[in-house]
Amino acid sequence: MQKDKKSRRISDPMARRLPMYYRQLCDIEKEGAVDISSFELAKRMDLTDSQIRHDLNAFGGFGRRGLGYNVQLLKKSIGDILDINRERTMIIVGAGNIGRAVALYPGFSQSGFHVTALFDVDPEMVDRKLGNIPVYHAKELAGYLSCHAVEIAVLATPSSAAQETLDVLAAARVPGVWNFVPVTLSAPEGMIVYDVHLTDSLMVLSFRMHEQQVHRENKDWTE
Amino acid sequence: MQKDKKSRRISDPMARRLPMYYRQLCDIEKEGAVDISSFELAKRMDLTDSQIRHDLNAFGGFGRRGLGYNVQLLKKSIGDILDINRERTMIIVGAGNIGRAVALYPGFSQSGFHVTALFDVDPEMVDRKLGNIPVYHAKELAGYLSCHAVEIAVLATPSSAAQETLDVLAAARVPGVWNFVPVTLSAPEGMIVYDVHLTDSLMVLSFRMHEQQVHRENKDWTE
Repeated sequence: MQKDKKSRRISDPMARRLPMYYRQLCDIEKEGAVDISSFELAKRMDLTDSQIRHDLNAFGGFGRRGLGYNVQLLKKSIGDILDINRERTMIIVGAGNIGRAVALYPGFSQSGFHVTALFDVDPEMVDRKLGNIPVYHAKELAGYLSCHAVEIAVLATPSSAAQETLDVLAAARVPGVWNFVPVTLSAPEGMIVYDVHLTDSLMVLSFRMHEQQVHRENKDWTE
Repeated sequence: MQKDKKSRRISDPMARRLPMYYRQLCDIEKEGAVDISSFELAKRMDLTDSQIRHDLNAFGGFGRRGLGYNVQLLKKSIGDILDINRERTMIIVGAGNIGRAVALYPGFSQSGFHVTALFDVDPEMVDRKLGNIPVYHAKELAGYLSCHAVEIAVLATPSSAAQETLDVLAAARVPGVWNFVPVTLSAPEGMIVYDVHLTDSLMVLSFRMHEQQVHRENKDWTE
């Protein structure tokens, strides 16, 4: 296995390919394949096989020349790189529609992300429970963080409260923020803030619908 | 400009790169660049430049040899391919947390997607308005679709109601469904159903946090 000591930050597009590799490998594993060539993986990802090797080499490379990749090992390795092969504690600030939707989304706990608390200012929400998750007043956030090791905070407040909330999270040295608020935030060095781009997904649907229409009308993309 | 008559379906990973190209080109345009080489675009996307040309050639190719791409034209072209350079009508079925969050999300109307109606069975929601959007009873869905040209339906019902809702949408020949319900649905030929993978975004955050830790501890990925 190659070692690659470069500390260069992985680019956003490459980072965003990692979950797709992971999901693809889950599918391939379910189909019962033991090994996969970079050629075959490239075909399924619609990347060139040199692109696949380039991506995976950034993490040390996992291929055995002539044998391709062991599906289970590669999936495990990418899971380790994504750091989803362990349990994690997550809180949600803002128990509006997005906050509640994230709290109740069934897919996260399967990947090891556990929501332990919600924070809001609405008296009708505070000191109740959403599912099994307690809802606290936002003013209790700093206190909660001082006695719980929270790794990820979901930011789902109104835009006007986003920066001050981030400042509280930063003061408590919460390392990661999953940001649903469509504003530009100023975060201290060392804190990772990742913005959700929900519109991207809607654009892919829009593209698929357009693709079908183009295909039906037997046109091509440039007409 | 090359013409490429092949009718092959664009793969999911390539389709998912298109909004990333679009967003990158919006940024490049804001920075004031007029042209961009496939090399420079490749660097920003962390793809090889042959991958960039491969992707764009699938849509006819937009490069002028030696000159690279005109930023504004390429952005317009990818916008046309994504079919986001026009107005579109969208309804939402299920006015729970996700449905309401989508209805109130500010980013969609900027890309031409306009929510005209919500549907739910909850008597406390029905016949009211959410923002400016009327909420109707789910039993009125078929009637609504028979007299409104809806292009996209957002599926945000409970899992148990997802398939029957899809059947109503299919009978009315709604061409596109943006599916937030984590179940496998059976759709008729010609209907595009695109599933939202919210977990992918959380995985990228998780990766970024891990990357920073690896960098801090001066380890590499394979240790």
